Amino acid sequence: AWEELFPSIGRIQYEGPDSDTPLAFHYYNAEEVVHGKPMREWLRFSMAYWHTIRADGSDPFGAATKRWPWEQHPAGDDVELAFRRMRAFFELLDKLGVDFWCFHDRDIAPELPTLADTNAALDQVVALAKELQAASGKRVLWGTAQLFKHPRYMHGAATSPNATVFAHAAAQVKKAMEATKELGGENFVFWGGREGYQTLLNTDLALEQHNLARFLRMAADYKRKLGLPGPLLLEPKPQEPAKHQYDFDVSTTAAFLLRHGLDKDFKLNIECNHATLAGHSCYHELETAAMLGLLGSIDANSGDPQTGWDTDQFPTDIRETTLMMLTVLRQGGLAPGGLNFDAKLRRESTAIEDLVLAHISGMDAMARGLRNAARLLEDGVLERMRAQRYSSWRDTQLGRDITAGKVGLEDLERVALAQPEPFDSLPSGQQELYEIQLSRYVR
Amino acid sequence: AWEELFPSIGRIQYEGPDSDTPLAFHYYNAEEVVHGKPMREWLRFSMAYWHTIRADGSDPFGAATKRWPWEQHPAGDDVELAFRRMRAFFELLDKLGVDFWCFHDRDIAPELPTLADTNAALDQVVALAKELQAASGKRVLWGTAQLFKHPRYMHGAATSPNATVFAHAAAQVKKAMEATKELGGENFVFWGGREGYQTLLNTDLALEQHNLARFLRMAADYKRKLGLPGPLLLEPKPQEPAKHQYDFDVSTTAAFLLRHGLDKDFKLNIECNHATLAGHSCYHELETAAMLGLLGSIDANSGDPQTGWDTDQFPTDIRETTLMMLTVLRQGGLAPGGLNFDAKLRRESTAIEDLVLAHISGMDAMARGLRNAARLLEDGVLERMRAQRYSSWRDTQLGRDITAGKVGLEDLERVALAQPEPFDSLPSGQQELYEIQLSRYVR
Amino acid sequence: AWEELFPSIGRIQYEGPDSDTPLAFHYYNAEEVVHGKPMREWLRFSMAYWHTIRADGSDPFGAATKRWPWEQHPAGDDVELAFRRMRAFFELLDKLGVDFWCFHDRDIAPELPTLADTNAALDQVVALAKELQAASGKRVLWGTAQLFKHPRYMHGAATSPNATVFAHAAAQVKKAMEATKELGGENFVFWGGREGYQTLLNTDLALEQHNLARFLRMAADYKRKLGLPGPLLLEPKPQEPAKHQYDFDVSTTAAFLLRHGLDKDFKLNIECNHATLAGHSCYHELETAAMLGLLGSIDANSGDPQTGWDTDQFPTDIRETTLMMLTVLRQGGLAPGGLNFDAKLRRESTAIEDLVLAHISGMDAMARGLRNAARLLEDGVLERMRAQRYSSWRDTQLGRDITAGKVGLEDLERVALAQPEPFDSLPSGQQELYEIQLSRYVR
Amino acid sequence: AWEELFPSIGRIQYEGPDSDTPLAFHYYNAEEVVHGKPMREWLRFSMAYWHTIRADGSDPFGAATKRWPWEQHPAGDDVELAFRRMRAFFELLDKLGVDFWCFHDRDIAPELPTLADTNAALDQVVALAKELQAASGKRVLWGTAQLFKHPRYMHGAATSPNATVFAHAAAQVKKAMEATKELGGENFVFWGGREGYQTLLNTDLALEQHNLARFLRMAADYKRKLGLPGPLLLEPKPQEPAKHQYDFDVSTTAAFLLRHGLDKDFKLNIECNHATLAGHSCYHELETAAMLGLLGSIDANSGDPQTGWDTDQFPTDIRETTLMMLTVLRQGGLAPGGLNFDAKLRRESTAIEDLVLAHISGMDAMARGLRNAARLLEDGVLERMRAQRYSSWRDTQLGRDITAGKVGLEDLERVALAQPEPFDSLPSGQQELYEIQLSRYVR
Repeated sequence: AWEELFPSIGRIQYEGPDSDTPLAFHYYNAEEVVHGKPMREWLRFSMAYWHTIRADGSDPFGAATKRWPWEQHPAGDDVELAFRRMRAFFELLDKLGVDFWCFHDRDIAPELPTLADTNAALDQVVALAKELQAASGKRVLWGTAQLFKHPRYMHGAATSPNATVFAHAAAQVKKAMEATKELGGENFVFWGGREGYQTLLNTDLALEQHNLARFLRMAADYKRKLGLPGPLLLEPKPQEPAKHQYDFDVSTTAAFLLRHGLDKDFKLNIECNHATLAGHSCYHELETAAMLGLLGSIDANSGDPQTGWDTDQFPTDIRETTLMMLTVLRQGGLAPGGLNFDAKLRRESTAIEDLVLAHISGMDAMARGLRNAARLLEDGVLERMRAQRYSSWRDTQLGRDITAGKVGLEDLERVALAQPEPFDSLPSGQQELYEIQLSRYVR
Repeated sequence: AWEELFPSIGRIQYEGPDSDTPLAFHYYNAEEVVHGKPMREWLRFSMAYWHTIRADGSDPFGAATKRWPWEQHPAGDDVELAFRRMRAFFELLDKLGVDFWCFHDRDIAPELPTLADTNAALDQVVALAKELQAASGKRVLWGTAQLFKHPRYMHGAATSPNATVFAHAAAQVKKAMEATKELGGENFVFWGGREGYQTLLNTDLALEQHNLARFLRMAADYKRKLGLPGPLLLEPKPQEPAKHQYDFDVSTTAAFLLRHGLDKDFKLNIECNHATLAGHSCYHELETAAMLGLLGSIDANSGDPQTGWDTDQFPTDIRETTLMMLTVLRQGGLAPGGLNFDAKLRRESTAIEDLVLAHISGMDAMARGLRNAARLLEDGVLERMRAQRYSSWRDTQLGRDITAGKVGLEDLERVALAQPEPFDSLPSGQQELYEIQLSRYVR
Repeated sequence: AWEELFPSIGRIQYEGPDSDTPLAFHYYNAEEVVHGKPMREWLRFSMAYWHTIRADGSDPFGAATKRWPWEQHPAGDDVELAFRRMRAFFELLDKLGVDFWCFHDRDIAPELPTLADTNAALDQVVALAKELQAASGKRVLWGTAQLFKHPRYMHGAATSPNATVFAHAAAQVKKAMEATKELGGENFVFWGGREGYQTLLNTDLALEQHNLARFLRMAADYKRKLGLPGPLLLEPKPQEPAKHQYDFDVSTTAAFLLRHGLDKDFKLNIECNHATLAGHSCYHELETAAMLGLLGSIDANSGDPQTGWDTDQFPTDIRETTLMMLTVLRQGGLAPGGLNFDAKLRRESTAIEDLVLAHISGMDAMARGLRNAARLLEDGVLERMRAQRYSSWRDTQLGRDITAGKVGLEDLERVALAQPEPFDSLPSGQQELYEIQLSRYVR
Repeated sequence: AWEELFPSIGRIQYEGPDSDTPLAFHYYNAEEVVHGKPMREWLRFSMAYWHTIRADGSDPFGAATKRWPWEQHPAGDDVELAFRRMRAFFELLDKLGVDFWCFHDRDIAPELPTLADTNAALDQVVALAKELQAASGKRVLWGTAQLFKHPRYMHGAATSPNATVFAHAAAQVKKAMEATKELGGENFVFWGGREGYQTLLNTDLALEQHNLARFLRMAADYKRKLGLPGPLLLEPKPQEPAKHQYDFDVSTTAAFLLRHGLDKDFKLNIECNHATLAGHSCYHELETAAMLGLLGSIDANSGDPQTGWDTDQFPTDIRETTLMMLTVLRQGGLAPGGLNFDAKLRRESTAIEDLVLAHISGMDAMARGLRNAARLLEDGVLERMRAQRYSSWRDTQLGRDITAGKVGLEDLERVALAQPEPFDSLPSGQQELYEIQLSRYVR
């Protein structure tokens, strides 16, 4: 039987914004109804197995710093250690009141010398996770296959110059989809950390991208056969570890899906830190994906504005989380997607309390954002201002004719020659007023 | 009759790499055959009217610095001044041996109080340019409409929240297409400097992008009616002056074209400085566009690696120009596109010789690139190494089955379970050797 | 007599955070005592003449968009127009309740064909400003000489390769210091927009930097002679318009001051947007300057995280303003410096109300920051955590010996050989908890 | 006795630029006299032990990829493995004809459970290295202490909030200096990867920087006592692994040295990739350091222009290496410093030939730069143009008076009032001509 690993930490409670207790929620109140639904249903929080359980604090210049209690076990049996980790993870899910979790196949179970053995080990760990889910009511938000860590994938997985590597990756995705299905997972994610190039000099762009499309098409076919319910999701990132990743950002990924006829089978999982590394705000990427009908799920994290790599920090900027939740509320929610904390402790944060505090900081920040966005939408200030700004497209014959496709350049030239200078009646863009209105709601 | 404005400058001649004369070509020898065609046919150099004639050296912190001789004329008649500028431009085209030129409508002729007057002035200047073309054999590479400078376009042209602004822009495009046709122009370009947003808060992304698509569809219809021969070209740029421009980069623009069914009518004009501002190498953008069948023309310039805005410098990095010409040679040339020097003098370069030297520096750099790329392709070193790298897709049954779409995840799982660890026979990526090979040809 | 230019706008009042009126202060309540002083004394708000009165909305790709009422006057007399602008400015200062203002010599009075005439025009405008100050109680926070706009400064002012340009710049600084003195200005600023290089190839770094030091030494001598009371301030910026500006950031400027023995005469004016362009947070630059004893004044603005140039937006990020005010409160205030809004309207904001709203947005944001920082300091949470973190330097013999300079490497080797592994007792860095604590105060 | 590990690779020979053999030098001809000295004396190449021997191809998203022959040994004895690595390293030094090497203490010998044991292991490995040096004539360019990898240094070494960590770091530096001395090392380097902060919120900037100064002062004292001949060198880097490193760039480090009176004891080791990460060109950092008298040694590598982290690639850009060698030639050489290849193979380059090719690519690139820079200096084109540009400081009375400190603002105002507008006679900056001249020499 499992012994509680963190007896000093109890179940985290909502205490309201004025509480001085750090180990409490100040904004996230799971059952409170905001904008017509309980907060937990809007937010659909998910914990990332890889960061929470497996991140050891090492970085390119430094060794591991974490000495988590679940790692302290007699050496030898890797599946036993995997069990221990899984139990620790469920203890954290429970204490934090997080409803969902996400995993890579290789996070939860070891890679063994043969694929058959590895698959068998995965089956054992999945069986335990299924039990723990049944006991706790926790659910998988999404699963994914880790196609970037093993050196066989150094030149790419679906985009490897080597066909046997492609086959290995395909086998791994099949098994990871089955594991996700077994655990009732609602989505399945592809992040192509090695699907890109280190130098264009040695790269056949066209072949690699066609192969990636072939790979994804096979996955979509198998998804249907397997009966996995939710959408498949691609996760854009501009680079790192690749010098250039093919799924650079939302628009690049949309181009790829459209070109290869994959836009019916795939949506996107947007990560905020990836957005900023690609030169966009997170809000830009979310709004763009929503406009394209591709917003499936969110990796809620944030980067450091001064660093050029993926820091995977918990989201704490309330203005940003307010904007994120604006997009989510406007599209009526994320389900079957959710908000996965693809975020980790700083290397120097070595106490188990830090792990709990970090999740609290992210959950509270997203909850503040939800409360702010809900008030903003309900008051309707921004929406009204914006509707007014575009009124000529709705309220004038010219606007309606253009959007209805009834006119061409020649018609419009006649209009333009007859009209006075449009600048003379052009309203201000009022950016400062929009920012004041937003700022008033960011609390 | 026109009096020569720069009598001190003669026609620039090819003198070879060892000449010490700065006012000579050291690498560009127009009629010399390289890789089966004269250099002038591969390179199709074009001079940009706006930078060469109209850039006055002002910047956001400083006043004009140029005192060009063509601007010294009795005040009053703007069309007269436009004539004077056009004659100076043709003198420069002639002395530099540049075959093509590019223009915005508002570069070559003044914007007057009414659109009708403005159009009439444009007609007069176009008539002169046509005469000068006939006398000199120079040709228009592309024309475009300036939809970013006038304050009426401050919120966008095709993406304005205001329908009358859209109409004005449409009228301007119609007229600019007619001017391009009249001058025998081979392509027509759209650069949407204001087609984007300053803040998402006041922006209706979906409406604006649909309107942009409507606008481009009208232009494509009118192009066919007018009988303009070459393709329409979109020119991606990530931002500046907009905070975000919708045509961010090649992939973003491809997504837009595919989504709106415009990919048959439009290709791209790739600018190197825009590529680097978007977080890509110029070579990446060129190769991506070529792969997508969208590489129409090139704005040959370069940016400063340490600055975050568009410096529009002449290309002088020979490694970069070698890679650019590799893409061009591989796709068999750019025609009807070409290499337009969307590049300007530094603000502090105030002598007329600087204008000539700057173009020499760019033409020689592209010519060195052409010579290097031709030798590289003819020797075939990189192509052979790359073909070898991907041989498993061609030479193994597994590779052929995958690319033929004959197998799915289940088949590949069987293959993977049966095969030994692929890493054990995975060749090196050999990036350093590829770089040595390239470096040997960069001379 | 002056006629009110903006009769529709009254004096802006404090209405509290729940007011729905945009043209009101929601957080800035000038006389309210916060942390022992009225808010106006902590904040010492200043309006920038150049942005508020002179910015016309033009950008590198676009013409002017503003049609301010003060510019609508019969053509001809530039000094008359300068008077009109100055009166408009004081009306704005008054209506917004801003106590200070800042100016460049060439903002407030025209540059005429000779220096003597230009100086005379400046005298006239300064005389009017002095009258308006006397009537309103407004004060100059700092003056400065505009040594970047005129083409004579294109290669630099104090760092020009040309000695007569240096002399001209020196004359201009002398006169601008006199104007500042005449207006009771409390500080004098140097921003070296052209003191840097466009290319190192044509630059003599050592000579240019020595000349800059000579120039500043002359200014310091003349300041003493003139009896200008406050400090001279350098304003760091990494680049733009220069490719590289010598006063790159706080540390670079500190190195320059120390090397040339100027650190007694000069402090710094830190601009937030310049900080982020240099790859630092604004808080980093403020804390670094404060640590070095060089924090003189602040240009309170902010940049866009996705753009690579100076956008000079009003500060609206409350987390950032909270941190800024933390530094200010910790050093006991900024006087004789202050918070100057070196910030401008977006190009598309063309209504006079926008100008007022923009200043309200900045003033309220800084006031929210002040309120947050005061509560944070008074509760002492961060300060206590930090003191605890460094306690070994205060509470152990080893820490005291090291900081007292009593030990060397040999002594410390003996200590290290004798002690157990320090990692085993090393506390967590607790970054997430620090961020939670800050976040709780950001309201 | 040692058995050759790479029998397939012979000693790399100079074959000239037209050779097709990749495993040969095409430009580096060690004994050839260029600009008055043999190439080997100008270039003073050094191989980095950490990258060459210890880099295993792992990255933040991936496991090790290298299977170097020297790592294949019976498990158990770490010092035995260290011996094996050292012998392999000397074989590479020999085959590549590299004269110098650099190391961290923990690269060459293992970290054992106690400092005493670790020191003893280091002594053993140093003894072997000394033997190998004696046999081969190879020399240490510099040694350094690895104060960033072990978790005890996670909060900093000299800037740790914990005094016992400071003591441990001091002991490690003492021992590493002794090892460097024992091996006849010519310099000793400090790179402070953890001397900075992850968040300012938990950081006492002033205390940390004073402690860093104390630490360096102790090292300088011990250096004198020990009789280490060459200078101590600080190596600037802006960030990574720290969010902000105190030795951000050349100027920041210079400010630190000046402020703490350390500028007599320390010079700088400039790394090109660190320069570009700090927002500077490598040439800028080298020229700035040279101007300040602080250029001690160079880490010759380069970064990827599109990535925001330290890629540590071998230098291959000939324009860049030409500029680097210009600085080196102008200051008469780098000795006792040199050109250390702080550069590593790409993760995907897994063959031992890649390691040799990579060094050849860097050595040839630096040699091409040397040849180019020598011709450029000997022809004197750039130097003459630049001398002319600044002639007014030498050739006019005004220029001489200013640089001699004979005049003040009042004198210069008199000059300025009397002189005509300086812009009217201001020469062009001629950047394009300078670039043409440089380009002609980049071959």
